[in-house]
Amino acid sequence: MNQDYIQPNPWCIIEEGFDKDRVKSSESLFSIGNGAMGQRANFEESYSGHTFQGSYIAGVYYPDKTRVGWWKNGYPEYFAKVLNAPNWIGIDVTINGESLDLATCTNIKNFKRELNMKEGWYQRSFVATTPNNIEIEVVSTRFLSLSHDEVGAIKFEITPLNADAEIEFSPYLDAGITNEDSNWDDKFWNTTEISSDKNRAFIESHTMKTHFKVCTFMLAHLIYGDTQKDTPDSTSKEELSIKSTYSQQVAKGEKVSLIKFGGYTVDRNHDENKLTEAANQILNEVSALGFDALLEKQKKAWAQVWEMSDITIEGDVKAQQGIRFNIFQLNQTYTGTDSRLNIGPKGFTGEKYGGSTYWDTEAYCIPFYMATKNQEVARKLLKYRYNHLDKAIENAAKLGFTNGAALYPMVTMNGEECHNEWEITFEEIHRNGAIAFAIFNYTRFTQDFTYIPEMGLEVLIGIARFWQQRVNWSTHRNKYVMLGVTGPNEYENNINNNWYTNYLAKWCLEYALEQMDFVKENHAADFDRIYKKVALSEAETTLWKKVADNMYFPYSEELGIYLQQDGFLDKDLVRVADLDKKERPINQHWSWDRILRSPYIKQADTLQGFYFFEDHFTQEELEKHFDFYESFTVHESSLSPCVHSVQAAKLGRMEQAYTFYLRTSRLDLDDYNKEVEEGLHITSMAGTWMSIVEGFGGMRVVDNQLSFQPQIPEQWDSYSFKINFRNRIVKVTVSQEGPTFSIDEGAPLEILVDGTKVTLQ
Amino acid sequence: MNQDYIQPNPWCIIEEGFDKDRVKSSESLFSIGNGAMGQRANFEESYSGHTFQGSYIAGVYYPDKTRVGWWKNGYPEYFAKVLNAPNWIGIDVTINGESLDLATCTNIKNFKRELNMKEGWYQRSFVATTPNNIEIEVVSTRFLSLSHDEVGAIKFEITPLNADAEIEFSPYLDAGITNEDSNWDDKFWNTTEISSDKNRAFIESHTMKTHFKVCTFMLAHLIYGDTQKDTPDSTSKEELSIKSTYSQQVAKGEKVSLIKFGGYTVDRNHDENKLTEAANQILNEVSALGFDALLEKQKKAWAQVWEMSDITIEGDVKAQQGIRFNIFQLNQTYTGTDSRLNIGPKGFTGEKYGGSTYWDTEAYCIPFYMATKNQEVARKLLKYRYNHLDKAIENAAKLGFTNGAALYPMVTMNGEECHNEWEITFEEIHRNGAIAFAIFNYTRFTQDFTYIPEMGLEVLIGIARFWQQRVNWSTHRNKYVMLGVTGPNEYENNINNNWYTNYLAKWCLEYALEQMDFVKENHAADFDRIYKKVALSEAETTLWKKVADNMYFPYSEELGIYLQQDGFLDKDLVRVADLDKKERPINQHWSWDRILRSPYIKQADTLQGFYFFEDHFTQEELEKHFDFYESFTVHESSLSPCVHSVQAAKLGRMEQAYTFYLRTSRLDLDDYNKEVEEGLHITSMAGTWMSIVEGFGGMRVVDNQLSFQPQIPEQWDSYSFKINFRNRIVKVTVSQEGPTFSIDEGAPLEILVDGTKVTLQ
Repeated sequence: MNQDYIQPNPWCIIEEGFDKDRVKSSESLFSIGNGAMGQRANFEESYSGHTFQGSYIAGVYYPDKTRVGWWKNGYPEYFAKVLNAPNWIGIDVTINGESLDLATCTNIKNFKRELNMKEGWYQRSFVATTPNNIEIEVVSTRFLSLSHDEVGAIKFEITPLNADAEIEFSPYLDAGITNEDSNWDDKFWNTTEISSDKNRAFIESHTMKTHFKVCTFMLAHLIYGDTQKDTPDSTSKEELSIKSTYSQQVAKGEKVSLIKFGGYTVDRNHDENKLTEAANQILNEVSALGFDALLEKQKKAWAQVWEMSDITIEGDVKAQQGIRFNIFQLNQTYTGTDSRLNIGPKGFTGEKYGGSTYWDTEAYCIPFYMATKNQEVARKLLKYRYNHLDKAIENAAKLGFTNGAALYPMVTMNGEECHNEWEITFEEIHRNGAIAFAIFNYTRFTQDFTYIPEMGLEVLIGIARFWQQRVNWSTHRNKYVMLGVTGPNEYENNINNNWYTNYLAKWCLEYALEQMDFVKENHAADFDRIYKKVALSEAETTLWKKVADNMYFPYSEELGIYLQQDGFLDKDLVRVADLDKKERPINQHWSWDRILRSPYIKQADTLQGFYFFEDHFTQEELEKHFDFYESFTVHESSLSPCVHSVQAAKLGRMEQAYTFYLRTSRLDLDDYNKEVEEGLHITSMAGTWMSIVEGFGGMRVVDNQLSFQPQIPEQWDSYSFKINFRNRIVKVTVSQEGPTFSIDEGAPLEILVDGTKVTLQ
Repeated sequence: MNQDYIQPNPWCIIEEGFDKDRVKSSESLFSIGNGAMGQRANFEESYSGHTFQGSYIAGVYYPDKTRVGWWKNGYPEYFAKVLNAPNWIGIDVTINGESLDLATCTNIKNFKRELNMKEGWYQRSFVATTPNNIEIEVVSTRFLSLSHDEVGAIKFEITPLNADAEIEFSPYLDAGITNEDSNWDDKFWNTTEISSDKNRAFIESHTMKTHFKVCTFMLAHLIYGDTQKDTPDSTSKEELSIKSTYSQQVAKGEKVSLIKFGGYTVDRNHDENKLTEAANQILNEVSALGFDALLEKQKKAWAQVWEMSDITIEGDVKAQQGIRFNIFQLNQTYTGTDSRLNIGPKGFTGEKYGGSTYWDTEAYCIPFYMATKNQEVARKLLKYRYNHLDKAIENAAKLGFTNGAALYPMVTMNGEECHNEWEITFEEIHRNGAIAFAIFNYTRFTQDFTYIPEMGLEVLIGIARFWQQRVNWSTHRNKYVMLGVTGPNEYENNINNNWYTNYLAKWCLEYALEQMDFVKENHAADFDRIYKKVALSEAETTLWKKVADNMYFPYSEELGIYLQQDGFLDKDLVRVADLDKKERPINQHWSWDRILRSPYIKQADTLQGFYFFEDHFTQEELEKHFDFYESFTVHESSLSPCVHSVQAAKLGRMEQAYTFYLRTSRLDLDDYNKEVEEGLHITSMAGTWMSIVEGFGGMRVVDNQLSFQPQIPEQWDSYSFKINFRNRIVKVTVSQEGPTFSIDEGAPLEILVDGTKVTLQ
């Protein structure tokens, strides 16, 4: 943990001072993205120190052959890699012929990085002396446009401070990039054409195997005083790259600027044979606007995002900065405009974790997008899974399931499984339930009853079929049991009767039956269409009901709690509080063997079920289970503290809730786990939002009404957030004096506040 | 399965007819070895068809970096590869300038392979027409010398049948070899020097990382009529190989022969700087003897092996061939002369399964070597584990165990773990018990009470410490439990309270305590030495006793059987007999997920405990457990049928015992699992021996006496075998009329026959 790294500031992320050991971490923290693409905050100029280069294009991936010790039937063949994409941000700079490289400069002063979250831009500035003794001031400003999401812009300004200097900028495109996490050192990209036209350049390339076609492009010009140079002095092509060079004799104290626009056109959005044409079109538009006007549009676009999704916190600047950083990153990662995209756990900030879609989307992210965007956005995320239903059925078939049973992958890009550990892919099947729960959650929140007849019911049927086949009848217990699973607590593998999974399975079967009845009654044509398509039989649904009615749940009479799994009480039940602090985090100090045998819980497991199905249990039951399981929970998943924060708040334990909140909201800013250099924890950022809105704000949908039970941490003066509930924008402000509610948009709305009906005008 | 492939013959393995689809399988089946090295039956001349090249040197391996999806603490870093070694058997042949290559010849006639097990040589012969229309007859004879175990010899004879021909032999050494199963395409060998001296050549190379130094050498001469050519026409060196060429104009109908001696000197046996010198010395010896005299020595050496270890079967030539093939391969793999070597599951016949030492050695192979060799051989195998004790302690420490607890690796070369799946390395810990059991078994059989005070007790203490730390107290059960293990049945992973493992652990603790008392009483000096060395405390041994006395064993009152593990009865208990035959073997038809959840057993698990500790249970208990567990056993491990054969015989079910016997004895000859091309199943061959000696012969040590309860399958006229029991050679012959016993060597011996005392003179 490093609390002094990033300066407290309500709207900006600021780092001051150059520390080469922090470069990779800062590259993560200052990452920028616009939903369609994103980049780590790599330097534009060359840098010979440690760095982790990363530019990413949404939806462009590579199926890297999995790496296993001993392949067994049903193991996934590929691990889909988030691909490092051709670099368009690069600008080689020389000062009197000497390459600008911060690793070789001396007297580095005033080094500052600033990520302006309010306006959506990133700036880096410094003063340094080059090896040939020219002191220069550099200011580099960069943003990825929200209004034109295929393009980004850079303004790179240099002022020689102690002498006149010949300054040469060589903006380039480079397709000779690799992934650090390649399994087999495969070549991921094939470059087919490199071309240039005056101050523009283009590289056409496609990914190997997946054949995603991409045109990486740039346009540059140099500005010195009143003159603008639109034609490079020279352009040179290499096998995988192209660079243009602009030279300028610059007077001491005068500033020279290079403006560079760049980005990608991809065949998901354009005719694959016209990618360069599309790139030219975009460059025409943005160069006509110019850097400053495009930046103005950027500020407006981000203002619009914040207008709805901002959470303000008064009296605690670090908490304010934390929540805004979380909200900013979520909006950088996924904007909700494309149902073919999803929310990768590292977003556009690193390579770790293949694939883009985990159950994190359904369990953690949908609530955020549902409440802070138009409801179409959440619907798109649900549609994404509907689009993958056939692949989920294929995935289940590979494991031996039949008759349209669907098992959604643990990790995916295109619907195929792309994780690579059997104990996860085969066994962490609760993800299927989270997908069904998201349909329920969306419908409950939005009252959009069209998704289920149009798409959702087929998903629910495929999932129900899976659960029915996945259990088996135990004559011994006279119940249905579910063997060989891994729950959300991945510190257990291949366990029997995980309570959470069994509970979710039972609920899924019942919910599918209920929604079938609903569609039959209200959307007869859809029902007929689906019924025929999936060839459902009466015998099958009868069996679903039988399974749901006879599911086994491990329970301890003595403790009065459901057991996380069979045999949990056989463990050596030493509480986390009694563990030697030096042994934590256990995943860094203990062997996997010891972790598996221990009672320690990585993230909410039984409690995840209490979170999803809060109203199935009494407050006393929640308290009992919370007290038991939290005492064994080490929270070594970024997804863990948020659920516990919401539940602690629900139990009125605000101090504990606040502690959990802090842990989640500044996880990356304070680099809790000393791993931020690998990238940010994007999906858990939605959990931070939940901690405030559902935890402190106590937001729920109760009896089809929006409901709040607001509390406030004693450390804060006040906080406020907005909720888009069925096209009404409800603003909630909670101060130490109490809550206030207002409605910004739409017709009057009756809500519940601490159980009391209140009408907002 | 292919029953018509190998011709039935009591002493020889014969294949007739050339089938290019069978080349790789035959390369396995006709493998030769002499304990120090071994080879697949690759052709000497070049062959452009499908082939799997393999030459192996005992004890020479490479630690290949493991390949895992996501590395976790305690995972082993390396998978030790059985290394393909430089090729010394190669002889390029041209006929009138045309390369001899069976893949391009026509009219291939009289193709025959013969492995003479009695005399220890392999011959291949054929008549074929080369592309340039010369019909030739080829006879190639090869053996690896038992008397000079660093050398092998080849006589390669060619007779042109339809014309005179210029025949050119180019014997070569080639260090440019690779492993088919390399994880990362690492280079495994580094060649440092290539030299030649007249008709001799040498390649010095060492393995990467492990730095085993090897000199690969050859000597050749050509014989035509009465002339012998000792000097090659030319010698040419390449980067990684060297070849000499001998040309001869050969008259139609006349034979030309190339004699080639070759092999390896290794730094395990010689000064690493004098390997070429040592090679020259060996070549002096064997070339002075000549091919024929060396072959005579080979025949004598094998006669000696057979004298003691042969099993004869009258009235069933396939069974006779099967058992001899098994005994032959075991003797080719391990001769018992070097306690640094062990018995790899594929011996010198393939690359599959890294490492050389599994629990197969202790559980299956030691009984064979103990009864058919001087008892020093079994003692060497025990000493091998003593030599690895420090590494076993390190291995346990990597997983978090302390205080000298020892966990022997699942697979090893040098004592380090070199398997690469956590569900095996961390969890299949019963191997530790098999190592302790082998000490008990050896002592029981030999009454050599010196091994335990000298070495064994330290091993037993390390193992006892492991078990004591590996269990935990369950307040819930008021017993010690053992969580997260994999039993011998590898179709389960990460189960709790595997009965076999718990039972073995309890036994190990008790046996260690018992042997401590024994050593204390009878070898006080050893006891003091060990006690100080391992710093054992009274409190520790008290705890061992407490754990042993309070171990939990899953048991079904209803069925009256011990359960393979907690929750076994929750499974969908469909018996193997009721499975669709098309679904078997399940490991080829089912996903790993489905296998794990199923009740199907890969190899004896609970029954392995009943095998080891037969006298702890009544015949009725054995029968009950056998009936229950065998009905769920799919025998998809080569180690499965033998234990069941022994137990079926014990239960008087001779027909069933015979069926199991057949399955194990001709597993490779009849290619049951269609995988013989990967290599032979060496360690399970010791199980075949057990099926006859312990199963049909009913051999045991009872009350410190050798005991037999002989039976005979109705398909056989008679069978006989010899047992070296405490330096007396007991010959047992069982015919349909009854058994006869005789003593070939040593003083009179009282034995038990069906419980009655009989004295053999």
